[in-house]
Amino acid sequence: MDVARLVELNAAYARAIDNEKFEQWPELFADPCLYKVTTAENLARGFESGIMYADSRAMLQDRVSALRKANIYERQRYRHVVGLPVVLGRENGAASVETPFLIVRIMGDGAMALFATGCYHDKVAADGAGVLKFAERIVVCDGGRFDTLVAIPL
Amino acid sequence: MDVARLVELNAAYARAIDNEKFEQWPELFADPCLYKVTTAENLARGFESGIMYADSRAMLQDRVSALRKANIYERQRYRHVVGLPVVLGRENGAASVETPFLIVRIMGDGAMALFATGCYHDKVAADGAGVLKFAERIVVCDGGRFDTLVAIPL
Amino acid sequence: MDVARLVELNAAYARAIDNEKFEQWPELFADPCLYKVTTAENLARGFESGIMYADSRAMLQDRVSALRKANIYERQRYRHVVGLPVVLGRENGAASVETPFLIVRIMGDGAMALFATGCYHDKVAADGAGVLKFAERIVVCDGGRFDTLVAIPL
Repeated sequence: MDVARLVELNAAYARAIDNEKFEQWPELFADPCLYKVTTAENLARGFESGIMYADSRAMLQDRVSALRKANIYERQRYRHVVGLPVVLGRENGAASVETPFLIVRIMGDGAMALFATGCYHDKVAADGAGVLKFAERIVVCDGGRFDTLVAIPL
Repeated sequence: MDVARLVELNAAYARAIDNEKFEQWPELFADPCLYKVTTAENLARGFESGIMYADSRAMLQDRVSALRKANIYERQRYRHVVGLPVVLGRENGAASVETPFLIVRIMGDGAMALFATGCYHDKVAADGAGVLKFAERIVVCDGGRFDTLVAIPL
Repeated sequence: MDVARLVELNAAYARAIDNEKFEQWPELFADPCLYKVTTAENLARGFESGIMYADSRAMLQDRVSALRKANIYERQRYRHVVGLPVVLGRENGAASVETPFLIVRIMGDGAMALFATGCYHDKVAADGAGVLKFAERIVVCDGGRFDTLVAIPL
């Protein structure tokens, strides 16, 4: 598993969300998996509860369905700028990887705002077909202010 | 054509603009070419008209000349942060590539603001000397608010 | 020295600062070295004085000690988004490299703001053990507004 393939996986992840092809998003995870959104502060204090949680591809797909309905009420899009992945180690065929990110939110009227920054803490492994998947993606946000608009996956 | 060379091309593009070496910018395009700035909304609705349009290197050079004059009146600079290129396919020696970007605008008094985010939709091909050039660069901006200050190429 | 290793060095640099492992930061420099923070405007005018200056690893370590004390009073963190390095040339085993950056500042209450953008002007060389180090890192900021909070290395 080289960095080039991790970069490709991250680019596909960002592209699925930013192009609003949300149905592609769960496909990038292993099944079962772990997807969690939390903050650096929560992580440092050992708090288990996060802002979002899913441990199977079905739960991720549920989120997408909910999102499709929520989107009727308010129109918004994201733009991810994803940094370079740092591979911290490898164990049992899975790589531990940290990848910084910055997300801009674009509202329906064209207004843009810096929405979130942080670091993805990932475990990435190849599936039976040799395709890289997220066995684990913990989205660790730097800031602590999240409103109810966190409907779109980070 | 590998990703490393696409990354180099994108880095040269951003560097020419951000370092205000605008005269280098048209050299990165094929001739004839297609350069267009539009929004995701326009693109989705099939609107042909964009914010900027050029179909030859001479037209790009005209923009640079205009810009050099406009700059007398208001001083501003850009800083591009360009993501990793995703190659979507190849046809007749040209690669179709999508590359996300974020642009910060820095005014003469040092004030900075998030100016634009979006995605470059490119067709890239090697010229006779084997140097990669943009046969097509459609700058698809996420937001829809552009004032008359869009003088500098995106 | 290939681009992949420069990317790794830059990722380690950003990670040390953003994860507040400041003690790792001086280790990324040669000794003696040159670390300077300045602005594009100062650089263009040939002003020698910058916002920060260090010419040895000991001076960098002093900064970290000062920072640890300053942090008692105000809590803030950075998030770097670092672009791709452009190698401009090589001389006497050192590569001249320019790498764009964007830094977001996150305050203790979770508020985020675009803090700085600019370009690292580096000279990078391998040490005796073959590990890449910054012989020189000039942090050239686009904007010119810096308050006394520039305590954390950029």
